[in-house]
Amino acid sequence: MNTQDIQEQIGQLSQLNTEKMFLNDFLLTWDRSQDEINAVFKVAEILRQLRQRNISTRTFDSGLAVSIFRDNSTRTRFSFASASNLLGLAVQDLDEGKSQIAHGETVRETANMVSFMADVIGIRDDMYIGKGNAYMREVAESVNEGYHEGILEQRPTLVNLQCDIDHPTQSMADALHLIQHFGGINQLKGKKIAMSWAYSPSYGKPLSVPQGIAGLMTRFGMDVVLAHPKGYNIMPEVEQIARKNSEESGGSFRTSESMAEAFKDADIVYPKSWAPFNAMEKRTELYGNNDMQGIKSLEKELLAQNARYKEWECTRELMDLTRNKKALYMHCLPADITGVSCEQGEVEAAVFDQHRNSLYTEASYKPYVIAAMIFIAKFSNPADKLEELYNRQHIRIL
Amino acid sequence: MNTQDIQEQIGQLSQLNTEKMFLNDFLLTWDRSQDEINAVFKVAEILRQLRQRNISTRTFDSGLAVSIFRDNSTRTRFSFASASNLLGLAVQDLDEGKSQIAHGETVRETANMVSFMADVIGIRDDMYIGKGNAYMREVAESVNEGYHEGILEQRPTLVNLQCDIDHPTQSMADALHLIQHFGGINQLKGKKIAMSWAYSPSYGKPLSVPQGIAGLMTRFGMDVVLAHPKGYNIMPEVEQIARKNSEESGGSFRTSESMAEAFKDADIVYPKSWAPFNAMEKRTELYGNNDMQGIKSLEKELLAQNARYKEWECTRELMDLTRNKKALYMHCLPADITGVSCEQGEVEAAVFDQHRNSLYTEASYKPYVIAAMIFIAKFSNPADKLEELYNRQHIRIL
Amino acid sequence: MNTQDIQEQIGQLSQLNTEKMFLNDFLLTWDRSQDEINAVFKVAEILRQLRQRNISTRTFDSGLAVSIFRDNSTRTRFSFASASNLLGLAVQDLDEGKSQIAHGETVRETANMVSFMADVIGIRDDMYIGKGNAYMREVAESVNEGYHEGILEQRPTLVNLQCDIDHPTQSMADALHLIQHFGGINQLKGKKIAMSWAYSPSYGKPLSVPQGIAGLMTRFGMDVVLAHPKGYNIMPEVEQIARKNSEESGGSFRTSESMAEAFKDADIVYPKSWAPFNAMEKRTELYGNNDMQGIKSLEKELLAQNARYKEWECTRELMDLTRNKKALYMHCLPADITGVSCEQGEVEAAVFDQHRNSLYTEASYKPYVIAAMIFIAKFSNPADKLEELYNRQHIRIL
Repeated sequence: MNTQDIQEQIGQLSQLNTEKMFLNDFLLTWDRSQDEINAVFKVAEILRQLRQRNISTRTFDSGLAVSIFRDNSTRTRFSFASASNLLGLAVQDLDEGKSQIAHGETVRETANMVSFMADVIGIRDDMYIGKGNAYMREVAESVNEGYHEGILEQRPTLVNLQCDIDHPTQSMADALHLIQHFGGINQLKGKKIAMSWAYSPSYGKPLSVPQGIAGLMTRFGMDVVLAHPKGYNIMPEVEQIARKNSEESGGSFRTSESMAEAFKDADIVYPKSWAPFNAMEKRTELYGNNDMQGIKSLEKELLAQNARYKEWECTRELMDLTRNKKALYMHCLPADITGVSCEQGEVEAAVFDQHRNSLYTEASYKPYVIAAMIFIAKFSNPADKLEELYNRQHIRIL
Repeated sequence: MNTQDIQEQIGQLSQLNTEKMFLNDFLLTWDRSQDEINAVFKVAEILRQLRQRNISTRTFDSGLAVSIFRDNSTRTRFSFASASNLLGLAVQDLDEGKSQIAHGETVRETANMVSFMADVIGIRDDMYIGKGNAYMREVAESVNEGYHEGILEQRPTLVNLQCDIDHPTQSMADALHLIQHFGGINQLKGKKIAMSWAYSPSYGKPLSVPQGIAGLMTRFGMDVVLAHPKGYNIMPEVEQIARKNSEESGGSFRTSESMAEAFKDADIVYPKSWAPFNAMEKRTELYGNNDMQGIKSLEKELLAQNARYKEWECTRELMDLTRNKKALYMHCLPADITGVSCEQGEVEAAVFDQHRNSLYTEASYKPYVIAAMIFIAKFSNPADKLEELYNRQHIRIL
Repeated sequence: MNTQDIQEQIGQLSQLNTEKMFLNDFLLTWDRSQDEINAVFKVAEILRQLRQRNISTRTFDSGLAVSIFRDNSTRTRFSFASASNLLGLAVQDLDEGKSQIAHGETVRETANMVSFMADVIGIRDDMYIGKGNAYMREVAESVNEGYHEGILEQRPTLVNLQCDIDHPTQSMADALHLIQHFGGINQLKGKKIAMSWAYSPSYGKPLSVPQGIAGLMTRFGMDVVLAHPKGYNIMPEVEQIARKNSEESGGSFRTSESMAEAFKDADIVYPKSWAPFNAMEKRTELYGNNDMQGIKSLEKELLAQNARYKEWECTRELMDLTRNKKALYMHCLPADITGVSCEQGEVEAAVFDQHRNSLYTEASYKPYVIAAMIFIAKFSNPADKLEELYNRQHIRIL
């Protein structure tokens, strides 16, 4: 990309209306307009280009990025830390412990207490159906109120780093990978993507990835097939959103109970394990009742149910069904690789190996996507600010 | 506040003598002169004004702020992180574990080993009577010696983030809140403040807040009443300091065994639970002897004792006894709110709700107070440095 | 040191060939040429001089320094944090847990996932013979491959913060202390250093310090004596390296089974406990087989073996055997001090006390040595960059 390209991209960004993202949060991709989605891609690309040219994108001379992780997470933690650091923010972890789900007064108070100098709050809370996103909204409302009451001197922007409903930083990074891979967002139109369930020896994997993919990829005119064994449904509300999206974008959305059928002529495949939505709802209820016996039974039941679908594995044979036998293989990582990380898993080692570099590249967009979400929420005119960074030409490394 | 105001405040600051705070520590408010106390308020206000105008107050291009917390602490941790970040320092936690109390050689060595590039050390150690502040002084002496021996290239400033005796960052933030609320430090003269014990279902809460309030508010000519049930005394040494302070400042200090009497015509009330000093001394002894059976008995005894004073609750009725029925309600947070965070606690939900924004604002001064303590310890002429920051006009956010 | 000196040192640095360290890692001192070793000392000294003159050495406007510690470590953690901060990098910990040793796919993937914006990775992994350094090489190869495949936009430099074979940041800091103490690297020629085993009531202390000292000090023409009781051998490969080094440098390397004989006329003594290499190999095997009974037996056996050599203590009497009775006493700290940190240990309290300031100063070089290793790996022409920093004259503290 040359100088003209960066300025051209900044020009394109300036055409997009992001005013509703200003001083706002990024919680679900389907809350955001097409302009806003496109702007995140554009800002992420420009930030990456600037960094590659050793131009500093530090926009904060001081400020905290608060991270709240209710589950262990190396990758998301590093993505958030990278994005925050790229913009000049220092990460401060709020370690509340996993199990306890705070409500009401406690959430409001803690949210304000940690935010006196916080410009960003990143939350990962995907454990309990009906809780994660709700918790994020509670935090967002608390700091918004604190800001409007004059308690907080700045409005901390909340970024959803994975919840029970959506995983916007993952799906947006995935989409940006597709945009780069196929040469532009317009090239996605008509492409077939198979978001398929795959077998894993563990159980209870979050639904946020398949839901995020269904809710986002349907906006680009793609043909989205969600494949899974009977009973492994995702949230019905998200399926509805996917249907509505595909109607508006001129793409399609359908479900299938055959991995092979979904892979047929696919341009992109995304085979990944997840837990049935109903089972996750039940688990949340059991945890709510502190019914440890019930949780154990459910776990046993789910593992047995999973084991009936061991043939749902992304093999070379299945890959040969895809368009020209060379669909792009995607995964949010880490994958359960047969014979490597488990006896039998989501994907054959040979398939994984062939796509490793592409998978790592896919992941590499996440820090930029997070940084872009923050950037757009902080500046009413992000194009002008990027122009300023570009012209300022501060170097990142001496 | 306009430009003239900032320069006026800087002018006022320049009249205050802070030379004894230069390259020194902030351990107890009563170690510090009135000029020094006033200077902390002034610097905190100016730093806040600068930040509100998007002027960066980064004074360190690199440097560490070491934090040592011997107790879990979200709020203090974030206040210290915010203050450090505001000045450009990166926080590095020294996680020594809670229980172990290091002495002598170990303290001296560790203090030096973590301080090669440390500009600040913040310590919270309030668990054991007779230990916390003593530990801080040991650390302070160690790094002071290291500095004078030429081992350390800078003198790390120690900030007491709460000890067994005082909680200076809390009481100073509380006082700054009062100054802002009543319109100036001179407006505090003659105001009545009721620092009152209140019932809590937990036991063993630190004494540092009531002691800190008694030791500080008596310096501003206020009428300070310390109310508590028989047997819930604070450290006698601190009561003496409070008496001496009030004589010098033209205010008063007295104790009371009635919450209602203390609230009568009060301008400010601060109802909060704490443990009896004698019991805390006993607990320290039991821990020292590793007498776990004794600790359990003491806990049981203290909870039973507390339970006799459930009527010590800040109710609407009690608030109606205060001046014009609208005293300012203060708390260091989190409060035990009846029917919210516990069945019965320190304060009625309706009273808490009414003062929530004020309570959050009270807390918002702490990062600035900590930053001010550091600032004055680092610069022999803080007024000049603030002038420089103001004229430099580096922006905090692009 | 005056201005002329700094420029003179930069001039000397510019004569040293460090091109093979550019975009490379620092894993073992004996992997590096004499020019490279000298350059690390030189850069460390210059960085220290600049900081002492309040000149900022911040070379990164953003960027992460990833730390991976497989063992608790306060000192190394702070040294790494200090070095990173000195150059402008933010530390992000990768907390993988102690026990688990990752391999292959997992290492490759994690190494890339945490490195999208990582400029440095510091690893401490000294627990298992044959594993620590091997793990570092796996990480280094993974990110090198990621960089060359275009996945990573920068090549993260790996710094060995202690492994099973070497402890280069310790031995280099120790050597820099000697250089400063004796007035130049050329003054080390012919000096006698006694690296001696000493008794400790704990067992299983790493071999990396004696191995690091033997592998490095033999390069400066010193007479290196490695003294230990029968059976406390270090890795044979490292002894071979030490022999080869001493032949090339015109010094000598020999072992001894007498502490007194080693101390005789020594200019420097370094008495420190370590575990027998063979026992550590056996322990690694037992851990590999998860043989907890075997580990317990080995521990008992080793403690009994240690106890036979309690007279291996650095006493005043032994010190009186050294050159002019005043050898420089060194230790990596913390030391087991008789009557202070244990009943009987490596050194008499009186000897330790006398050398305390020198020991702390010895430790103070480590952050600068780490920063220098990073600096040389990041800049193809470190002398030019230091010149730039010097001429830029950005201040560290306002």
